[in-house]
Formats: sequence, C-alpha cells, structure tokens
Amino acid sequence: MSKPKVFEKPTGVKDYLPEAAAKLRSIEFKLMQCLERWGYREIITPTLEYYDTVGVASSTEDKKLFKLLDRNGTTLVMRSDMTAPIARVVSSLLREHAFPLRLSYHANVFRAIEAEAGRDAEFFQTGVELVGDASSESDAEVIALAVACLQAAGVKPFKIALGHVGFLNGLFQETLRDRTDAQTQLKGCLLNRDYVGYREALKTMGLPAAVREELEGILRLRGGQEICRQARQLTDDPVAQQAIAHLCEVWDVLEAYGVSEHVLIDLTMIGDFSYYTGMTFEGYAADLGFPVCSGGRYDNLLAQFGRPAPATGFALKTNRILEVISKEAAAETSNRVLIVYTADNRQQALSRAGELRMERQAPVETLLAPDGQYEKEQLAGGSVRVRGIEYQSVIEFVN
Amino acid sequence: MSKPKVFEKPTGVKDYLPEAAAKLRSIEFKLMQCLERWGYREIITPTLEYYDTVGVASSTEDKKLFKLLDRNGTTLVMRSDMTAPIARVVSSLLREHAFPLRLSYHANVFRAIEAEAGRDAEFFQTGVELVGDASSESDAEVIALAVACLQAAGVKPFKIALGHVGFLNGLFQETLRDRTDAQTQLKGCLLNRDYVGYREALKTMGLPAAVREELEGILRLRGGQEICRQARQLTDDPVAQQAIAHLCEVWDVLEAYGVSEHVLIDLTMIGDFSYYTGMTFEGYAADLGFPVCSGGRYDNLLAQFGRPAPATGFALKTNRILEVISKEAAAETSNRVLIVYTADNRQQALSRAGELRMERQAPVETLLAPDGQYEKEQLAGGSVRVRGIEYQSVIEFVN
Repeated sequence: MSKPKVFEKPTGVKDYLPEAAAKLRSIEFKLMQCLERWGYREIITPTLEYYDTVGVASSTEDKKLFKLLDRNGTTLVMRSDMTAPIARVVSSLLREHAFPLRLSYHANVFRAIEAEAGRDAEFFQTGVELVGDASSESDAEVIALAVACLQAAGVKPFKIALGHVGFLNGLFQETLRDRTDAQTQLKGCLLNRDYVGYREALKTMGLPAAVREELEGILRLRGGQEICRQARQLTDDPVAQQAIAHLCEVWDVLEAYGVSEHVLIDLTMIGDFSYYTGMTFEGYAADLGFPVCSGGRYDNLLAQFGRPAPATGFALKTNRILEVISKEAAAETSNRVLIVYTADNRQQALSRAGELRMERQAPVETLLAPDGQYEKEQLAGGSVRVRGIEYQSVIEFVN
Repeated sequence: MSKPKVFEKPTGVKDYLPEAAAKLRSIEFKLMQCLERWGYREIITPTLEYYDTVGVASSTEDKKLFKLLDRNGTTLVMRSDMTAPIARVVSSLLREHAFPLRLSYHANVFRAIEAEAGRDAEFFQTGVELVGDASSESDAEVIALAVACLQAAGVKPFKIALGHVGFLNGLFQETLRDRTDAQTQLKGCLLNRDYVGYREALKTMGLPAAVREELEGILRLRGGQEICRQARQLTDDPVAQQAIAHLCEVWDVLEAYGVSEHVLIDLTMIGDFSYYTGMTFEGYAADLGFPVCSGGRYDNLLAQFGRPAPATGFALKTNRILEVISKEAAAETSNRVLIVYTADNRQQALSRAGELRMERQAPVETLLAPDGQYEKEQLAGGSVRVRGIEYQSVIEFVN
C-alpha cells in the first residue's frame, strides 16, 4: 500500500474548522443545558473499553467496532455508543445509587465499517439514559425531552416516529409462527422502509388471504392516537396487545407534556430487535433523509453488567443537527476587535485589550506594527479586514 | 490471559461521575471562553490520524502511541496531542488563510505506555497554537494567555517557569563540543530536576575548573529579570546569547501585560529538544508535583506538513486543573426541584415543571406517585432527600 500524503486524514473522519466548531459547540451547549434542566447529570467515560465487557454488550455489530490490543494482549474497543459504558458505570461506581438514575452524556463514538459506505467513522452523540424505571411515564419523559432538545437546538420542523418492538414481534409470532425466515424477510423490508418489497414478499408466502390482509394492514398504521385503536383491532396476540396498550399510555403522558403534536405513531418502525425491548423512537428533521435522534427502551442490558434494571433513553446525532442548522443559519457579523500598537504604546495597548476582553466578552486581538503601518481594507457596513480576518473595529495606539 | 470482569475498564482510563464531570465542564467552559476573548478560534480534529502523517510528526515517543490498522492495512494512531493535527489542518484546509492564525482546542489525547506507570492513558488538553508569527510579542502573548487561563479556571497560586532551548544548547556546545554523551547525561539530569546528580556528573567529566564552575553556575539561573543579566555574563556563545536576548524581550512584553509577577525565568528547564526551537514554559500550581500547563515555540513542525512557518503555543492539562480545583471547592447546595404528582394531576404538574425549567434555569425532576405517597427525608437547612437525591424543594400535586 502507498503512504498517505502529509495533509491526508483517515477515511470517514472530519476536521471542523472554526465556523463549524463554534456551531457544534453552541448546539452541544444548548443541548446539555436542556438535559441539565430536566435533572439529567452528565457523566464522562473513557474512549477505550474492554471488548469483552462493553464491546460485546453494545448494540453495534461486531464488524463495526474499532479494535486494538493493549500491552497485555487484551482486546480493546473504541466506544461505539455510550449506552453500554453507562450501564457499566451504573453497575459499578454508581451501584449504591438509588433508582431512577438520570444520566446524560456528550461524546464522540466510533463505527469502523461506515467509512466505506461514505458515512462517518467518528461522530458526536448527545443523549440520556433513564435507568431503573419501567413505567410509561419514563418512556414519555425521554420522548418529551428529545422534543425539548430538538427545539432547544433550533431544529424545526421535526417529527418523532414512535413504535414498539412488541407489536411486530407479537403480530409475526401470531401469524408466522415457526416461519422465522419469513419473519426475517419482512422485518428486513420494514427496516429499509421498502414497503413495495414488503407487499411483494407477502404475496410469495402462500398465506391465507385474511392473514395477508392483516400483515398488509400494518403499513397503514402510521398516524396519531387513532392508530392505537386500529392496531388493537388488527391482532389478538397478547404481546402485541400489551405493546399497543403501553403506547396508548405513553401517548397520554405526551399529551400532558403538550408535545404529542410532534409525535407520530408508526407501528411499521423497526429498531434493533436484539437490543430494544419496548417502545422505540426516531426523530426526523425536514429535508434530512436520516434520523437526527433515536432511542427506546432496553430492559435487558443492565443485567449483563450484574445490576438488572429497566432503562430507556435516546441519543441525538449532534453533527447531523449541525447539518440541519447550518443550512438555515445566516452569516453572522463579526464582533471581533483588533488593537494595533507600536512598541512605545505597548503597555497602554495591552491593558486596553485586557479591559475590552472583560467588558465586551468578545474576541480582542492585538497586533504590534513596528512603524505603525499595517494593511487594512474598509468593508461595507463599517467593518475592517486585516490579514484575512474581519473586525468590527480597529483601535490604534500608534502615536 | 484472563477475561476482564464486566465492571472493569482498561488500565489508565477514567470515568467521571456527575460531580467531577460538571466541574470538568465548568473548567473547560471558562477556559474556552477565555481563549475566545483573546481571539483564538476553536478547531476540532478527528481522534484517529494516519501514523505516517500526524503520528511521526508528533512530539510523542513512538512507543507511547496507540496504534491500530484500518481496513486497508494502513497504520492509524489515536492522537497523542493536538499540535501535529492542527499543523496538518493549517497546511491543508486553512492553507489559503493569512498568518498569523490563532487557533484553540479542547480535546482528549492518548498515551499508551503511561498506564503502566500509573499515569493516564487518556486525558484532556485545552490549548492554543499561534501560527505564523516568530516575534517575542507572540511568545509573550501565549504566556500571558496561559496566565489568564489559569486565573479564569480558578487555579491559585501558580507560577510559570520560562526557559529557552537555545541557552542550554549554546552553552553545552560551547563547553562540551563533540562530547554528546556528556551533553545527553547532563540534559537528562536537568530533565529529571536531579541537581545533585547534575553536580556529581560534572565532577566525573574531567573538565577545567572554569568550565565546571560555568556549568554549575546555571543551577543558580532561576528567578526574575535579573537572571537574564547574570546568564549573559556566563557565556559568550552566540546561540546562548541570542536565546537570552529573546527572553529579555519576552519579559518586557510580559511586564506590559502586567503578568510578570507570575513568571520565573528558569534556564535549567529543559523541554523536548527535538521539538521545541525557542522559548519553553511550564505552569505549576501549588502542592502539585507536575505541571498543569506546558508550551513553547516549535518553528520546525509546520515545514513537515509543507507550509513552513514559525509557531508557538501551549496546552493546559485540564484534568490536572480539575484535581487542583477539587481540593479547594466547597460542597455546593442543591438547586434541584422535585415535582411529585398523581395521575389525575399529571397535566398541571408537567406543565409546571416546564415553566420552572424556563424560569429557574435549574434542574427540575418529576415523579409520578400513583397514590400520592413517596418516601422523603427532611434534611438540615430545609432541603429534602428523595430516593438518594437532595432537592432544594419538593412541590406536590397530589390532591
């Protein structure tokens, strides 16, 4: 293989130049502030974890994990999400802490294979875990909080699609018992939102007409609260019925939060079935083909770390939110000040810079111009460009 | 080897629980705010870089780099500092941007071998690079900014030790020309601050009495501006003389900034000689045996990325600052509010929670108590403990 050029960086990773970095920080700050107001407390965990602990417990496919060996030959992974590391901490350092635990994070996470599909190998997630509460109240809390976060970040319009793994699991068990291949095929279609393929697949399965109609019927199960009623009529399976009853309860709480207008029940939505155990949701911003947020209930994970407990939560895809916001953001006017001085006036100039930094809480740069001369360009609107940077004003100490 | 236990994490990495994470965030926020006011703009670079670009250019020893292979068999490194990645960006994405460039960062960095010495394998750095300005003015600017940062973070007392690689290089070349082993031995002693060992080594080198005295004399070269005068008398070597002249200029600018009281000239200070090319400095907080800040001039790095330019900068060791601050910080009183409600009062309770979050800008949690009952413990000072968390007040909607 050839050596990379000096200016190259690995595939799938990014540099954020000052303008983008400032926006990302601003989004992060607003999100963390929102999470704090809802009582969620940030924790920070290491980038590297043991493969045998956090690696195997994570919901990320094994081949997508970045692996390396430590000096003892033990396999490490670069974290692929924050849910498994937080489960580790809840079961160890926070073992004595009573439930529920409201925890938040903002972190970069890593997915190895995505690079080849033109996707990010490193990206930012801001999210929460609400651990130790199995109620519909807590499911609704994290959804309402996701809505508050997207609003705080300035994403609009957006919609939250809400589903439940129990509904499809129950329905498929009822209608396609022992036909796991057929179940897998249909779930695959739904996962890719390939509804045409789903209908075609149903036709080839030799199902009784009533069953085929029933399974086709779920494609219409997207909408408001009325979907719960419709879905209940579609199936008698107790698991599916329980799932719908839970979603109805969640919906009631979402109405009490006053956020149901942002939520759409979508019973065709399919998350990671091996990981999620209850409701799941995804947040979509207008014009963006991929979710800016995803979450759900995962009641089996904590047991893997020795402290069995129900849990629910979500992750916001912070750099995707940056993409949404950046499309809308108008060019900001510079608030920078430049102080130009000659050596004779150094002390006066530098103390003025110090004062202005305190007073204005805005960027103040200094420039020694030995003979008092420097190139400046007057811009429209009163600002001045010096050496490629636009300043709101230039103050001279050159006499 | 044995499998790690589920609750274990790799050696040398840390979890920051909510209290520590909040303090770390607060320090980070104050530092980034300070850097912004001095006109430094943050950039974010990826955690993974190519070994052949950033890896080999970094000042970190090869054996301390965390290495892994990408899918093409190319060696990647987890960044060990931010200076080399920023040099890469300055030479590529920011190639057209005029000098000087004032850039800042806050990032986690990785050092592989430190774990075994009980040191951190992952830690946080907040810092700046001032690229494209070779003047003593810019060296003084970054030192004055380091002082402002330590003050902003609440570190006190602290001292900045200021040296110059040219002084020792020049002096040793003058006195121990062609005796590289002796030079290496003496530099090693100074690096470890082993002054007894330094004196012993001098005795064994069979040097003329005048030379030995000269080399012993540098141990006294620590203090204020008077050190410059003393050092000038000690050597005639032009490289050493030039180093001292530069430090005197830097000192003058530091006086104009009004920060020289925090600075101590220490000509025995030795940084990484293969990396730094001019002044170097380290910040020490009281009671802490290791520096909380280090920096200096590195005029050769940018050329490795194809855009030769002088540069100066520093990195604050943010988690060491956390250790200093944590010792001093008093226990804070809780500002959290808990709203307890029955299902009947859900809507009223949840909208009150929303209002309070906006009004108070402080954490507000909610708790459904189906029959209006919940366990609470009245604490001294008026606060209330519910399920392990202390609240400033509890508001009930349970009628």
